[in-house]
Amino acid sequence: MAENTEQEVNQETHHNYSEDILKIIRSNLPEDEIRDKLDEYHENDIADVLPQLTKEERIHLLEILGADRIAEVMEYVDNADDYLKELDDARAADILAGMESDEAVDLLKECGPDYADRVLSKMPPETGAQLRRMAAYDEDVIGSRMTTNFVSVYMHMSVPEAMKSVIAQAADHDNIAEIFVVDERKNYRGEIDLKDLIIARKDTSLEDITVTAFPSVYADEKIADCLSSIQDYGEEAIPVLSRKNTILGAVTAADLAEVVDDEMSDDYAKLGGLSEEEDLNEPVMVSVKKRLPWLILLCVLGILVSTVVSLFETVVVTLPVIMAFQSMILDMSGNVGTQSLAVTIRVLMDENLSHKEKNKFIRKEMTTGFINGLITGLFAFVFVGVYLMLLKKMPAGQSFLISLCIGSSLLVAMVISSGVGTSVPMFFKKIGVDPAVASGPLITTITDLVGVVCFYGLAWILLIETFHLG
Amino acid sequence: MAENTEQEVNQETHHNYSEDILKIIRSNLPEDEIRDKLDEYHENDIADVLPQLTKEERIHLLEILGADRIAEVMEYVDNADDYLKELDDARAADILAGMESDEAVDLLKECGPDYADRVLSKMPPETGAQLRRMAAYDEDVIGSRMTTNFVSVYMHMSVPEAMKSVIAQAADHDNIAEIFVVDERKNYRGEIDLKDLIIARKDTSLEDITVTAFPSVYADEKIADCLSSIQDYGEEAIPVLSRKNTILGAVTAADLAEVVDDEMSDDYAKLGGLSEEEDLNEPVMVSVKKRLPWLILLCVLGILVSTVVSLFETVVVTLPVIMAFQSMILDMSGNVGTQSLAVTIRVLMDENLSHKEKNKFIRKEMTTGFINGLITGLFAFVFVGVYLMLLKKMPAGQSFLISLCIGSSLLVAMVISSGVGTSVPMFFKKIGVDPAVASGPLITTITDLVGVVCFYGLAWILLIETFHLG
Repeated sequence: MAENTEQEVNQETHHNYSEDILKIIRSNLPEDEIRDKLDEYHENDIADVLPQLTKEERIHLLEILGADRIAEVMEYVDNADDYLKELDDARAADILAGMESDEAVDLLKECGPDYADRVLSKMPPETGAQLRRMAAYDEDVIGSRMTTNFVSVYMHMSVPEAMKSVIAQAADHDNIAEIFVVDERKNYRGEIDLKDLIIARKDTSLEDITVTAFPSVYADEKIADCLSSIQDYGEEAIPVLSRKNTILGAVTAADLAEVVDDEMSDDYAKLGGLSEEEDLNEPVMVSVKKRLPWLILLCVLGILVSTVVSLFETVVVTLPVIMAFQSMILDMSGNVGTQSLAVTIRVLMDENLSHKEKNKFIRKEMTTGFINGLITGLFAFVFVGVYLMLLKKMPAGQSFLISLCIGSSLLVAMVISSGVGTSVPMFFKKIGVDPAVASGPLITTITDLVGVVCFYGLAWILLIETFHLG
Repeated sequence: MAENTEQEVNQETHHNYSEDILKIIRSNLPEDEIRDKLDEYHENDIADVLPQLTKEERIHLLEILGADRIAEVMEYVDNADDYLKELDDARAADILAGMESDEAVDLLKECGPDYADRVLSKMPPETGAQLRRMAAYDEDVIGSRMTTNFVSVYMHMSVPEAMKSVIAQAADHDNIAEIFVVDERKNYRGEIDLKDLIIARKDTSLEDITVTAFPSVYADEKIADCLSSIQDYGEEAIPVLSRKNTILGAVTAADLAEVVDDEMSDDYAKLGGLSEEEDLNEPVMVSVKKRLPWLILLCVLGILVSTVVSLFETVVVTLPVIMAFQSMILDMSGNVGTQSLAVTIRVLMDENLSHKEKNKFIRKEMTTGFINGLITGLFAFVFVGVYLMLLKKMPAGQSFLISLCIGSSLLVAMVISSGVGTSVPMFFKKIGVDPAVASGPLITTITDLVGVVCFYGLAWILLIETFHLG
């Protein structure tokens, strides 16, 4: 009973407002009443009903709510380009001008260059030029992620003047938790917390409450180079400067979170052998395309491994029992390689390692591989020996000789695989290839080769040449 | 030349302020001058120098800057518990009371229960009780991630009254971008954007600018259940309510980003065969411990696979050439299983699938596996056949019979592995075991078994029993 009530209340929180909103939009109320009622709802919830409306209803909704509110709604819409293209260019331009500039640029890119050109030319020249400038940034520099939603005040203002200026800007720019400060020549000078401005006494000089050593970035800096350092500051917004020290925009905590999320998802997908992240509702053929390249490559490399394995045919023919353990050795050395790979990819993403640090890191990984190899190797020696004796009814000496061979090759293969799993991504990073993409198939192939050579090589030398088993 | 200049400017942006800050702290300037100078720096940069100071210098710094500023610095410090314990309990209590409540709770947990009890008792009773209440929430409910850094106003206030109230609260609570609205009985009613309050006319009623359908969560909701839905709103802060509809706290965008980042990192590590995420500077033995469990488990399961492989010894002895392709088949079916696993884990994290959706998803994965298997299988059939003919000098008929066997078992193994990679994590999720942890070793083992049985089984039936090769 109690649980039931909780369930109900719970459902109420995550209330699905779609029905209510649809009912309001489709009511025969006067337009200003519809607007007032819709003001109670979050833009994200209004965005959710757009696909359920007809084209006419959507255009009518725009007339009721106005371009500025619809602009906020559009930031939450999937396939916003479809809805934008339903409108005439002038209306579309109004909406785009009201959106956060980075969202507007993204949306324009989805719409295609011809459409973008046409609509940009309908905008106020200043806004259009600003969006064009933002669209020109490369995907991998911080300028492509900034928003022009920020407020700034002059250093020489008094506290009440600054407060007034913030209030005046707040209508268009609602990121006001952090206020950037510029001098008369519009050069960036520092930051003031809105809180500090609010609680400052009227006769305080802005200089006293400005943090001049506030973190900042240049618009043309690579995201990868500055991401982790600016993330550490945990600020809501960080100013993005031109090389001449004027403020071009700001990167917000939400922007940063998105970048981090993208990079993580990307690394995750690649570790899983996918060329890109996949969706639940993606068509089969899209999934096929994302996965096939890896598989074909692995297939080709597999032939290479086969060539090496076939060199050891005589070993297997002489001593067929050992063949059964090949998959174990390859799984283990592959897994150790993947462990090192996974750790290395994350470390490479977060830090720029010096040559010395790289060597130290490789050594650490190989030491870890050695200790794990020693423990696992010992375990396999005992466990496999007993297994061969009891279940395969082999003589004790022969059982433990074979299991010694398996344990030792596990140790050797695991140490080498750790080194490979660490150094291959480092090498790719160094030559400027994304280590997360390139390393996967290569690591599998190399650890396979390492495992096969260690295992059959040792079996050959130890079991067949030295002890003449088989 | 141009590049050089850019480099220099670049270094200046990511200026390392540590030296400047150290110089200021160690200068003989009067205390208020030191404080003024340090006011120019970000708390994160001050946090960076703490390890370089002596214990006496740290205590002196606290005297200069005061508990409130040091509280902000502490939020950026690694091992903050060590520095806290250098202080007498009363000072430590002052600092903790000044920190964001969720950060204070985390820090107290690191300090241990005895210390926490002692320090909490030195705090103002209300603050202490609040932190105790927060510490009582389970790690997996939203209450454990909330902060009490939020401001609220009464619905019946006028715009100037509300503004005054926000300003009064801003000194202690600086998350003021979103203002929560309560009625006379302190029940939650909705939200006002600070921007809307600032630009509102004096005679506007708060009711008009309050968004009543603003998203909210209950403190005892599971994070996993509400994360993706509240993330969609992209708000800076979302109110956390008691079941009686009073505001207990807020979850901020930064808190949410941290949760998402944690979950992603965790899934990534587990896909890489690590039990937890690893650091660059972690001691070797810690890494060993994180990786060993997986390896030992894989070793044990490897023996199981060996038992199955050994059933096919006669196949290999009769036709040794096919042994060389075992690693290829196992790599491919293992990879396909991992691809499906990676996709499934992400989907399971984001969505609660109905029974029907699950079936649809498994079918989709198997269809993808089938198409990829068909293409890869055909490719292997041609490629391996030509390879055997040309490089191993085998007769054409025999070459393509063997490559047919390899191609077909690839197809079958890939379809089954896709199904396994999708259904195993779903099964674990259903019985309440973390699918990311449990699925990895099991998937490897199952896909190995699938690969071995398909490959040697087909070779036995097709090549040996039917065509009497070998």
